[in-house]
Amino acid sequence: MTETKDYVAKARKVASLFSPKSIAVLGANNVQGTVPYDIFHNLLRTGFKGTLYPVSPGEKQICSVKSYKYVIDIEDELDMAVIVFPSSVGHMALEQCGQKGIKSVVIISAGYREVGGRGIEREQQLLDIAEKYDITFLGPNCLGMINTDEQVMLNASFAREMPEAGEIAFLSQSGALCTAVLDYALPRHIGFSKFVSLGNKAEISEVELLYYLKDDPATKVILLYLEEIRDGRALMQAARSVIEETGKPVLAIKSGRTAQGASAASSHTGDRKSVV
Amino acid sequence: MTETKDYVAKARKVASLFSPKSIAVLGANNVQGTVPYDIFHNLLRTGFKGTLYPVSPGEKQICSVKSYKYVIDIEDELDMAVIVFPSSVGHMALEQCGQKGIKSVVIISAGYREVGGRGIEREQQLLDIAEKYDITFLGPNCLGMINTDEQVMLNASFAREMPEAGEIAFLSQSGALCTAVLDYALPRHIGFSKFVSLGNKAEISEVELLYYLKDDPATKVILLYLEEIRDGRALMQAARSVIEETGKPVLAIKSGRTAQGASAASSHTGDRKSVV
Repeated sequence: MTETKDYVAKARKVASLFSPKSIAVLGANNVQGTVPYDIFHNLLRTGFKGTLYPVSPGEKQICSVKSYKYVIDIEDELDMAVIVFPSSVGHMALEQCGQKGIKSVVIISAGYREVGGRGIEREQQLLDIAEKYDITFLGPNCLGMINTDEQVMLNASFAREMPEAGEIAFLSQSGALCTAVLDYALPRHIGFSKFVSLGNKAEISEVELLYYLKDDPATKVILLYLEEIRDGRALMQAARSVIEETGKPVLAIKSGRTAQGASAASSHTGDRKSVV
Repeated sequence: MTETKDYVAKARKVASLFSPKSIAVLGANNVQGTVPYDIFHNLLRTGFKGTLYPVSPGEKQICSVKSYKYVIDIEDELDMAVIVFPSSVGHMALEQCGQKGIKSVVIISAGYREVGGRGIEREQQLLDIAEKYDITFLGPNCLGMINTDEQVMLNASFAREMPEAGEIAFLSQSGALCTAVLDYALPRHIGFSKFVSLGNKAEISEVELLYYLKDDPATKVILLYLEEIRDGRALMQAARSVIEETGKPVLAIKSGRTAQGASAASSHTGDRKSVV
């Protein structure tokens, strides 16, 4: 079992995920309507205050921005990478991020633990590479993340529009719920400080994010939507620490207690037994 | 007087202005509402099929795209440059374009012949540099240009929205008229093949553009709005050549015959005497 101090230490690493100055998007393309296109396009169009570097084996430019064949070809320092390559090559992309010295990664791609079999091995490969290079990563199989801080303006997600800035941090294991909440919030001017799709929670879970959000001055309320809780004791401890030390309310919903709920949840948890 | 064959030869050089694969924007910035911002922002947002390189002395990125201190710092080959630096440093920017081997330039900035005095000298400096490096340039003091060809999608102009593709080429010495025509055309679905703001016509005039448009398969009709005609014989010859050889209609309006018209026109022609 992970110790509280380890979660707290990891929360400090997680912080770097929210305020990068430079981001490489590995696997970006120019095909409108695809996830790799949307991710780069959204990052580019929602006012990110840092610099974006698309990486694509076959394209000279993505959305009119110079593209690189490999992330290691980029001459400048990189704070973060977003991987949208298919899971069959995701581990190679992460390995190159490690070689390039990137410490924060968002892995959008699906095809890992949630599909079982070879996908479970692939997720373990990601974890092994992350450990080797001291990388912290969100996902895989997630919708990405958003930081509305006007000094950052980071929309590394499928969301076409940046939500308004606000005091709510929203963490969700369901990408569909992320989309629904964003669609609901936009016309109602409900703002968010951070918006995070947790996906498979292979490396970063809600626990270290809670410790990170505890110290995030932009966040006053934390909402959690979880489909699977792996370390209940740590989660309770983290939530208690947030509430007692800062007074920030933490509201959590755990789904998947009914058969249908468990079936839906299994697409992220990979826990096939619960469906049967 | 320039010979017809010289205009025809120049028309071939002008062609490169309409289909660049890579463009540097010299003087771009991140200050919304300024011309340098709008120009880069529009190029980036309207689907240009090539690669964009902002150049700015003080910024690391423009609109999230890596920016370079000088155009000569860009490691890749460049087909074209758009200069939005103030006229006080425009000649230095053009000089560096020459050193970098760029042959096609759009000079948006005002502050040249149209302001008289020092501006006339500055425009001559541009012409001297262009001759030295065999550069062809549009402007200065212009709104830019647009090519709606879906293989190019070039909007190097103030126009926020790309007009629809169509068969009309529109050349105008008045930037205000460009804006008015675009605003009129958009909701009415009137399309354009090429859209060119001529500005001061220091180096490229309507004459070589007519020869270029004669051979442009996307253009079926040519509209001209002129405030000043410098070589009437060449213009008539070019128009006749277009009409007789291709059957493309050429419609031209020459303004500035009344006192008010002449006054308005003088902001491009610099012909102050006609106002008095």
